[in-house]
Amino acid sequence: MANSIDLKKLFAEFIGTFWLVLGGCGSAVLAAGFPQLGIGFVGVSFAFGLTVLTMAYSIGAISGCHLNPAVSLGLAVAGKFSWKDFPYYVIAQVLGAVIASAILCIIVSGKADFVNIGDFASNGFGEHSPGKFSFLSGFITEIVMTAIFLFVILSSTDAKAPAGFAPIAIGLCLTLIHLISIPVTNTSVNPARSTGPALFVGGWAIEQLWLFWVAPFLGAALGAVTYKFIFSISFKKPVKGK
Amino acid sequence: MANSIDLKKLFAEFIGTFWLVLGGCGSAVLAAGFPQLGIGFVGVSFAFGLTVLTMAYSIGAISGCHLNPAVSLGLAVAGKFSWKDFPYYVIAQVLGAVIASAILCIIVSGKADFVNIGDFASNGFGEHSPGKFSFLSGFITEIVMTAIFLFVILSSTDAKAPAGFAPIAIGLCLTLIHLISIPVTNTSVNPARSTGPALFVGGWAIEQLWLFWVAPFLGAALGAVTYKFIFSISFKKPVKGK
Amino acid sequence: MANSIDLKKLFAEFIGTFWLVLGGCGSAVLAAGFPQLGIGFVGVSFAFGLTVLTMAYSIGAISGCHLNPAVSLGLAVAGKFSWKDFPYYVIAQVLGAVIASAILCIIVSGKADFVNIGDFASNGFGEHSPGKFSFLSGFITEIVMTAIFLFVILSSTDAKAPAGFAPIAIGLCLTLIHLISIPVTNTSVNPARSTGPALFVGGWAIEQLWLFWVAPFLGAALGAVTYKFIFSISFKKPVKGK
Amino acid sequence: MANSIDLKKLFAEFIGTFWLVLGGCGSAVLAAGFPQLGIGFVGVSFAFGLTVLTMAYSIGAISGCHLNPAVSLGLAVAGKFSWKDFPYYVIAQVLGAVIASAILCIIVSGKADFVNIGDFASNGFGEHSPGKFSFLSGFITEIVMTAIFLFVILSSTDAKAPAGFAPIAIGLCLTLIHLISIPVTNTSVNPARSTGPALFVGGWAIEQLWLFWVAPFLGAALGAVTYKFIFSISFKKPVKGK
Repeated sequence: MANSIDLKKLFAEFIGTFWLVLGGCGSAVLAAGFPQLGIGFVGVSFAFGLTVLTMAYSIGAISGCHLNPAVSLGLAVAGKFSWKDFPYYVIAQVLGAVIASAILCIIVSGKADFVNIGDFASNGFGEHSPGKFSFLSGFITEIVMTAIFLFVILSSTDAKAPAGFAPIAIGLCLTLIHLISIPVTNTSVNPARSTGPALFVGGWAIEQLWLFWVAPFLGAALGAVTYKFIFSISFKKPVKGK
Repeated sequence: MANSIDLKKLFAEFIGTFWLVLGGCGSAVLAAGFPQLGIGFVGVSFAFGLTVLTMAYSIGAISGCHLNPAVSLGLAVAGKFSWKDFPYYVIAQVLGAVIASAILCIIVSGKADFVNIGDFASNGFGEHSPGKFSFLSGFITEIVMTAIFLFVILSSTDAKAPAGFAPIAIGLCLTLIHLISIPVTNTSVNPARSTGPALFVGGWAIEQLWLFWVAPFLGAALGAVTYKFIFSISFKKPVKGK
Repeated sequence: MANSIDLKKLFAEFIGTFWLVLGGCGSAVLAAGFPQLGIGFVGVSFAFGLTVLTMAYSIGAISGCHLNPAVSLGLAVAGKFSWKDFPYYVIAQVLGAVIASAILCIIVSGKADFVNIGDFASNGFGEHSPGKFSFLSGFITEIVMTAIFLFVILSSTDAKAPAGFAPIAIGLCLTLIHLISIPVTNTSVNPARSTGPALFVGGWAIEQLWLFWVAPFLGAALGAVTYKFIFSISFKKPVKGK
Repeated sequence: MANSIDLKKLFAEFIGTFWLVLGGCGSAVLAAGFPQLGIGFVGVSFAFGLTVLTMAYSIGAISGCHLNPAVSLGLAVAGKFSWKDFPYYVIAQVLGAVIASAILCIIVSGKADFVNIGDFASNGFGEHSPGKFSFLSGFITEIVMTAIFLFVILSSTDAKAPAGFAPIAIGLCLTLIHLISIPVTNTSVNPARSTGPALFVGGWAIEQLWLFWVAPFLGAALGAVTYKFIFSISFKKPVKGK
């Protein structure tokens, strides 16, 4: 029985991360042919954020709606998620990202003037950064962005914050992170989101993929520790239900 | 008496779908002459989403605010809506979409340099896809988008989700769906929204209309079944009021 | 004492309408010199909507946050606002709009290449419509937009709707209305908002001003009657506090 | 013990203001090389607003989430914040802004074609105003914008307003303020936000910095007094928890 609940959690994480990659990367890839009327960085930023906002109100009560190995790691560091479940969540998330990339691949290859998938919204640094930002710029950016992301996730879902609003704060935090950092790394803060497209692009995207596992993990741990420090004093008031 | 309540529900669905089509298609059609300052795909995406967000806070308590035959079908599949009411809802929704298209037709024909209504924000595939995406791309896109849309609708209105926030999640989910898929099919996920403009455009728009009934219906059923699977375990806690 | 409360209500309406005109018209007028990076119709649409969203959370509990003679009229038609207070609200709203226009005039005249205030975000039809839409197009558009606006205001603040969310629905409804109708009339739905800039532009803006009192008033009454019809059946459940 | 709580508050203000400057100024500086697809004034406006929205749901319960010396001053004038804590908050906020500017400096200097940081999103008037607006235009704009900002902050967090929604109203108010006033002064309403970049730009940015302390402080006091006047009548109902 407990086992069957776990499977539903994993399926929820699979669907949620599928939606994050299909929606976020899909919005960028599909609108790329419309420079004038297309959605630009603002549209892509809202798309990524709204995948999380919508799923957090949907599967938040089922799996916690991590959709991101760095989020799962940060929650585990903060003691809000079981390390035992961590590898299963990561597998479900990466699977969702890969299947989303495959479906997006099929959709985009149906375009009349399709040649190849190009960068496919992959994350990169140096010559593969949208704005040609260096490795160091990308590394710092991914760490800081993920750290604040986890800090917002942990503190807006804390019992001290008003109940029910966390999905708005967290989703729009991801929008904000994209508004800032698309020029630098095309914005990852999420190893699963980076892995999906990279597998289909191959080459440089695979070579640079390690950064988008290491930096978000480091940032997530940093954000979790910061949260623990600031929220460590218990006000001893009875915790309200979620 | 029960009958009189039903009429009000149908009238609410009529007004809501009228607003969805007037607002969503209207924003696209009326701003088309302003490539530089106009609203682009981002503005149209927000317009469609905000029609649903605003109406869900208005008539949600009256009719459930479906505004979409695929939503009514998905809710019926999930057991949250009576199959008996389904045909009446669909008729009210299509009527609202048609009257909205007629009013939009009158407004747009008052433009000084008006020639004809052009594509009138109709949905299409192949050469009638905004980005020239194939039939298969359009078919897959409409199924997947509607499936996730129904999944978000059903799970964000579930008793496990925080109360009151569902209109934000659902409205912004429709915004997100447009950010992703306007380039592919001009985004339907709603047979009534497709039917309204198609009747005024005629020709190809009527010929391709079947896809925007079949694919959203298939997607809605898929989303409903997925929801049922993930949310099937009852936690036996007393259901809170809406 | 009751008199002193009334003055505070009127002062709140004054400040709120001041903010609506300064923010909405100001965003359009001040960014006009930035075609590439400027905010376009999407930015102006969000600006107008956010003036209402922010003020509704601020002065909603004081004055009801109408900020608009058509809103006051619609609420009075629906029996939710006293006809006795109507003229005072209208005067406070128009005063707020005029003072905001005066301040905006001073700010914009400090621009290095300032020549004159131009259209100053006034509302118009025919040759003064942004997209050259006819009188009839403008008249229909203003009636329909105001009707739905009042319908959303009345039903989202009804006891049947979830408490606390109405400012989001109402503010974003005004954003949506602008996304649709800026090309047609530059969007009024608010006689006070039209009157402020028109007084400074003079000429055609004054001549066409009557439309932006008549059409919003007609639309507001229509929206109020529609609301009354749909929400007239009392479910007899005890009304929750605001 | 009380002392240890204070340090956490200051650390929270440091992190929050760090995020405000890194997110707001960072989004403007990093996307500057993308005129076509970049985020423009709308994107920067949302970025600034979302830094506050996200932090208000995170650290609101810890420090009140001022992130801005003018906000701290306005709250103190209104009697909602202790004058004793005021200087410590200001120091923490300015420190956060400076460290964010330093990190942003490192990130942006990693751009392949980096020459210098340019205006670095500094605030200015006259020839340093984005739209070449005069000193007087800038002075009036900063006073009025900060006054309304404080009015919205104080009244949306008042016990009369619906609980939990204030971060949405306040964050989106800052977005709105940027939609209006980026052309005039590049929008400050926050002395800490102005000080961070100015220290790295030097020269004119330092010379003009005084305006972005004086005008926001004047505006904040004006907004606080207005709030006190309108909300001064106590309805004597028991104050609900935050």
